[in-house]
Amino acid sequence: MDELRALLETIRPLDAGAMEAARAWQARLAKPPGSLGKLEDIAVRLAGITGRVHNTLRDKRILVFCGDNGVVEEGIGSAPRTVTAAQAVNMTRYCTGMSAMARYFGDRVVVVDVGIADPYDCPEILCRKIASGTRNLCREPAMTRQETMQAIRTGWETAVENAQDGADVLGIGEMGIGNTTTSAAVLSALTGLDPAEVTGRGGGITDESFARKKEVVARALALHRPRREDPVDVLSKVGGLDLAAMCGAFLGAAAERRPVVADGFISVVAALCAARLCPAVGEYVFGSHASFERGYAAAAAELKLEPWLRLDMRLGEGSGCPLAFEVMDAACAAANGMATFEGAAIDDGYLDAIRGKDCFTV
Amino acid sequence: MDELRALLETIRPLDAGAMEAARAWQARLAKPPGSLGKLEDIAVRLAGITGRVHNTLRDKRILVFCGDNGVVEEGIGSAPRTVTAAQAVNMTRYCTGMSAMARYFGDRVVVVDVGIADPYDCPEILCRKIASGTRNLCREPAMTRQETMQAIRTGWETAVENAQDGADVLGIGEMGIGNTTTSAAVLSALTGLDPAEVTGRGGGITDESFARKKEVVARALALHRPRREDPVDVLSKVGGLDLAAMCGAFLGAAAERRPVVADGFISVVAALCAARLCPAVGEYVFGSHASFERGYAAAAAELKLEPWLRLDMRLGEGSGCPLAFEVMDAACAAANGMATFEGAAIDDGYLDAIRGKDCFTV
Repeated sequence: MDELRALLETIRPLDAGAMEAARAWQARLAKPPGSLGKLEDIAVRLAGITGRVHNTLRDKRILVFCGDNGVVEEGIGSAPRTVTAAQAVNMTRYCTGMSAMARYFGDRVVVVDVGIADPYDCPEILCRKIASGTRNLCREPAMTRQETMQAIRTGWETAVENAQDGADVLGIGEMGIGNTTTSAAVLSALTGLDPAEVTGRGGGITDESFARKKEVVARALALHRPRREDPVDVLSKVGGLDLAAMCGAFLGAAAERRPVVADGFISVVAALCAARLCPAVGEYVFGSHASFERGYAAAAAELKLEPWLRLDMRLGEGSGCPLAFEVMDAACAAANGMATFEGAAIDDGYLDAIRGKDCFTV
Repeated sequence: MDELRALLETIRPLDAGAMEAARAWQARLAKPPGSLGKLEDIAVRLAGITGRVHNTLRDKRILVFCGDNGVVEEGIGSAPRTVTAAQAVNMTRYCTGMSAMARYFGDRVVVVDVGIADPYDCPEILCRKIASGTRNLCREPAMTRQETMQAIRTGWETAVENAQDGADVLGIGEMGIGNTTTSAAVLSALTGLDPAEVTGRGGGITDESFARKKEVVARALALHRPRREDPVDVLSKVGGLDLAAMCGAFLGAAAERRPVVADGFISVVAALCAARLCPAVGEYVFGSHASFERGYAAAAAELKLEPWLRLDMRLGEGSGCPLAFEVMDAACAAANGMATFEGAAIDDGYLDAIRGKDCFTV
């Protein structure tokens, strides 16, 4: 824990001066103030992260942490455990939902095995296996505290390595059958929300499996009573290797001052763990799409994330990241490419009229 | 009107067979059915438009219709009339909000003058001027029926020319100081909604101007009593050259079987006029972002548009189109680039489990 505390101390708040300069720049652009809405907020926040008013996100990477979850023994998954390994391999071939989009937009996908249980033959997967899946959280803690810390450190290091290798922005995805169950348990433990309120159908399950899934989450929380104020304890007892590594990746991205995009339910729960460990992390995290998965909205609200995309997606993987990157690119393109009032040949009367008047709220 | 009727008869419904084939293709892709949400719907609808299961939108263009509105005499605009000409010129230089994003994403911007009142020197603007602005709808009909038809035809022809020149998708934007006022009047006339409910602050105006703007819309509607069942009459009396040309462009895009993206409030009102003239057009129209401008939600609901982006934008121009094109690209990339279950090395047990079961609703 001392090691973690030392790491967390390297995470700094955003650069207030750069944000102020970015706001001043937005005010000079030839548009009604605020008319680009969240695109303006994105440009300002990016300035706070990088320290520069003008930003361009050239090198975009999605880090996908893969691991199996012992809780699938309970029959709560939408798919057999073998799908974790199969889809991890497919991601390296850019033929899953997320990775097909990533390839199209030129984003790199980095697949990291932190706990895949089944064998596979794929040198493109970065092997950082901590265990061959977790234990069944219905019967015992999913992980030891040491395993959890190792997963957090692995996620952190992966983010740092990619940032130092040139990534301008990171997205955090996952592959792990059973991880909507662990995410619901972690979210419930961190917030006190009723498990039934945050447990969804994940990839799609029958009514019977869904009832069992909610019961499993409630039982695990009652059995382990994870300490709400200690996210590492929560992750150890009812989380997973994928979630813990993702949490570490959010932390590492913030430490390296890189914007980092959360995907759907699982990714946002991991970001919430990171923000509970270090509140400053929240400033580095951008939402992407409003996932259809139950629990997403509650998790996003805890982080004050306002997702930009409403596509009713519930695929996971990191599938919201490629389009979120494009939204951020649009924000940069507007901030970098628009004329200022001075350069737009718009007469001074208009300039005077729209400046310094509080008349733009609807 | 006979001429318009002949044009409208060339617009056909979507290709049901191609949509069925696209749905069957989506079911073969290695993902829980429906998990890509609206991206799946987009891919299916594109198939219905083009007749092909697999689509790629290479050539993307935003058609921007520019015209002045006589109603600005009433002091309801956020900017002087000269801004219409200035920003039309700036759009050809790719330095406005919309066009800076368009340049970044590689979209072409086609600027069409259908009624700019002030002089400018810019050969890149396509001159199709029908009049130097409209008349003040508070005192007399904004346009004659003949002018309105001419504007509709101009918009139609511009869409057809660009489609035949190779555009795979069109976006419809505008520049015209005063056009949130005309759009509110047209929407109120077409739907019967209270003018106060659909009139917003546009580019941003004082409380005093805002009160006057609502009063202007109500007064114009009471004066002219446009016939709800006759969109050409509505456009003539309380619309504008920009709105009428945009309406024509939506019609022309559908006639050429091209997907066409509506931007914010003004663009969606124009699309609604088109759909009232020919309901099949609605199937060709895609929403983009949920504009912050009051009235947008009502107009979008009339068209059953579900915008993909929530960015609190209220800039106009067509500024939602560049990102909407990227969302459509993502839908195509997933449909074209994902492995099928057969190709994904996912075992048959999973395939059997997720197929033919109605267990994916949340």
